[in-house]
Amino acid sequence: METERSSGSTSALETNEVAQIQGVLLGSPEIMTDYIAAFEQATPHIRLALPQDVSDPQAITFALAWDPGAEDFRPYPNLRLVSSIAAGVNGILASASLPGDVPLMRIAGESQAQMMAGFVTWHVLWHHRRFGDYFANQDRQHWERLPKRDARDIRVGLLGAGKMGGATARALKALDYDVAIYSRSGRNLPEGVTGFSGDGGLDRLAARSEILINLLPLTPETRGILNAELFARMPEGAMLIHVGRGEHLIEADLFAALDGGRLSAVSLDVFAIEPLPQDHPFWNHEKIVVTPHDACDSTPTQVAHEVAEAMKRLDNGRLPTSVVDRHAGY
Amino acid sequence: METERSSGSTSALETNEVAQIQGVLLGSPEIMTDYIAAFEQATPHIRLALPQDVSDPQAITFALAWDPGAEDFRPYPNLRLVSSIAAGVNGILASASLPGDVPLMRIAGESQAQMMAGFVTWHVLWHHRRFGDYFANQDRQHWERLPKRDARDIRVGLLGAGKMGGATARALKALDYDVAIYSRSGRNLPEGVTGFSGDGGLDRLAARSEILINLLPLTPETRGILNAELFARMPEGAMLIHVGRGEHLIEADLFAALDGGRLSAVSLDVFAIEPLPQDHPFWNHEKIVVTPHDACDSTPTQVAHEVAEAMKRLDNGRLPTSVVDRHAGY
Repeated sequence: METERSSGSTSALETNEVAQIQGVLLGSPEIMTDYIAAFEQATPHIRLALPQDVSDPQAITFALAWDPGAEDFRPYPNLRLVSSIAAGVNGILASASLPGDVPLMRIAGESQAQMMAGFVTWHVLWHHRRFGDYFANQDRQHWERLPKRDARDIRVGLLGAGKMGGATARALKALDYDVAIYSRSGRNLPEGVTGFSGDGGLDRLAARSEILINLLPLTPETRGILNAELFARMPEGAMLIHVGRGEHLIEADLFAALDGGRLSAVSLDVFAIEPLPQDHPFWNHEKIVVTPHDACDSTPTQVAHEVAEAMKRLDNGRLPTSVVDRHAGY
Repeated sequence: METERSSGSTSALETNEVAQIQGVLLGSPEIMTDYIAAFEQATPHIRLALPQDVSDPQAITFALAWDPGAEDFRPYPNLRLVSSIAAGVNGILASASLPGDVPLMRIAGESQAQMMAGFVTWHVLWHHRRFGDYFANQDRQHWERLPKRDARDIRVGLLGAGKMGGATARALKALDYDVAIYSRSGRNLPEGVTGFSGDGGLDRLAARSEILINLLPLTPETRGILNAELFARMPEGAMLIHVGRGEHLIEADLFAALDGGRLSAVSLDVFAIEPLPQDHPFWNHEKIVVTPHDACDSTPTQVAHEVAEAMKRLDNGRLPTSVVDRHAGY
C-alpha cells in the first residue's frame, strides 16, 4: 500500500484524530465515489465523505469538487483548500457559494499532459496519414497506396500553452510537424515552436493552421472562441481537434464550416452537454470523430497524492503548485 | 525548377555530353516510370532510361533498381553506382548479376524515417488507447469512457536501430512510452532507450515488450524472425506492429499466436506477396490491421537528389553516405 507516511507510524496516526484532515465531496457523485476509497488507500490521513455523511461541517477543511451546485460550499465555514478532480475548474468557479479566500487547485500533472499529447497526436496522424481510407480499403480487400506529405510541410496550430499544450507540441515536434502555439502570454513555449499571442495572434495562427487543436481552458474570454469567424480564417479543407470544453464551440458554425468545405474533418472530445445526447447530429456525421471526454484522466490515486501534497504545502505557509488564478479562470 | 546547379550553366551543360551521367532503370517498371521524369526535372545532368531505350550500354554508369531480374545488371560493364529506390535492398542483393565491386546505396533519408515514426506511433496509440472501441461506440451512439494506462507503464520494444528505429524511438519517448531497442550492434541508441543485442538480447526484448515493432532489414539472419518461438516469449495479449519485410514473418505462427491469445492485436504493412492477394485471410481478420506497404515513401525527387549527391561523392573519391554493407545485408 502506498501512503504519504513511512512505515511504523500508522497505528499512532490512526488513533490521533487531531492529525486527520476531513474533506467533503461536492458535485456529481456518480463519477466521484471512487475517490473515497482511493483517498482511504493512498492518503489515509485525509478522510473524504459525501455531504450526507458529514456529522460536523465545522471540521471539514477540504473540499474535492466537480460541477458543484450553487450552494454546495455554504455549510463548510472552515475550508482551507478546494480542489478539482481534473484540469478544468470552470464548474467550480461557477458555484455562488465558493469561498473567495480559499486556495482553489486543479489537477494538472505530467501524466495527464502526456495522455493528452498521445490522444491529440493520434488524431493528427489519423487525419494526416488518412488511416480512415486504409480502413475503408481493408474492408473491401483493396490494396492502394496513398499519396504522402512530409510532416514538416504540415502546419499544426495549438490553442493553449499550458502543460498539455507543451507536452503535445513536443510530441508533434518529435514527429517533425511544423508547430505553432497561440496563448494569452506567448511565453513558456517549447523549443522550435512559433508563438502567437495578443489581439491579432489568434487570427494569424488560424490562418496558418491546416490542423488546429484547441486545448484552452474555459474562461469568459474563450467561450465561443471556435466560431465562424475563426473557421473563415483557416485554410480551405482544414481540420479541427477540439479537446478543450464544449462551451468553446459554436455548434451551428461548425456544421456550416463542414458543409461549406472550410473544415474537412473534425475530432470532438468535449461537448456542451455531456454525455452527448443520443440524438445529437455529431454522432452520425461522417466527418466527425466523437470520443466521450476521455482524452486524459487523473486517477483518483493521483488526485489523493496531489491533494495531500497541497495540504502539506499549506501547513508550511505555501500555496499548492497548481493553484488557480481566479482572475484568469485557470 | 530545382536543379543541382545554379542558374546560368544550363545551356552549356545541355550541349556538353561528357558531363552527362547516363543511368538505367532495372526492375518493376510499373512503379518506376515516374523516376525518369523526376530525374529530368530535379537532376537534369543524370539521364535515366528503361533498358529497351538504352542505345549504348557501355555509357551507362548508374543503375536505379527495385526487384531486378537475375540477369538485369549483365549488359552494363561500366556501372559506378547502384541505388535502390527505397530503404530495402534485399531484392537487389538477390540478383545474380549485381556486380560485386560497385557501391550499392539505399534511400534512407530523414523524411522517410520521420514518416515511419509517425506511422508506427499511430499504431501504438491505436492499440494503447483503444480507438477501435471508440469508433465502435460512436457507431451506436454510445458514450463510454475507457480505463486508461500511463504511457510510461507500457513497454514498447523495437527491432532495429537504424534511422527509422531511432526516429520512432524518439517519437515514442516524447509520448513517455518505456522504449527498448534490439539491434545487432546495440549501438547508436537514442537517449533514454534501453538497448538489447547479442544472442539472448532478442529473447529478453520480446519478454518485456507489450508492443513489439519490427523495423529490421531483411537478411538471411532476420528471415522468419517473427515466429512461434519469439511470440511465445512475449507477454500474454501483446501487440505486434510489423513494418519490416513480409519474409520476416511466419504467417502460420502469427495465426496460432492470435488464436491462442498470446497476441491480441497485429498491424501489418508488409507481406510475403504484395499486393496482398484478395483472398488472403489477413484482410478480414478482426484482430489484424492491414495497410498496403505504405508506412513511408521516398519521393522520386528525393531519390534523384540523393543519387546526384552520391555521384558527386564518388567523383571526389568518397563512398555514398548510405552505402550498403553487403555482408550485413543493409
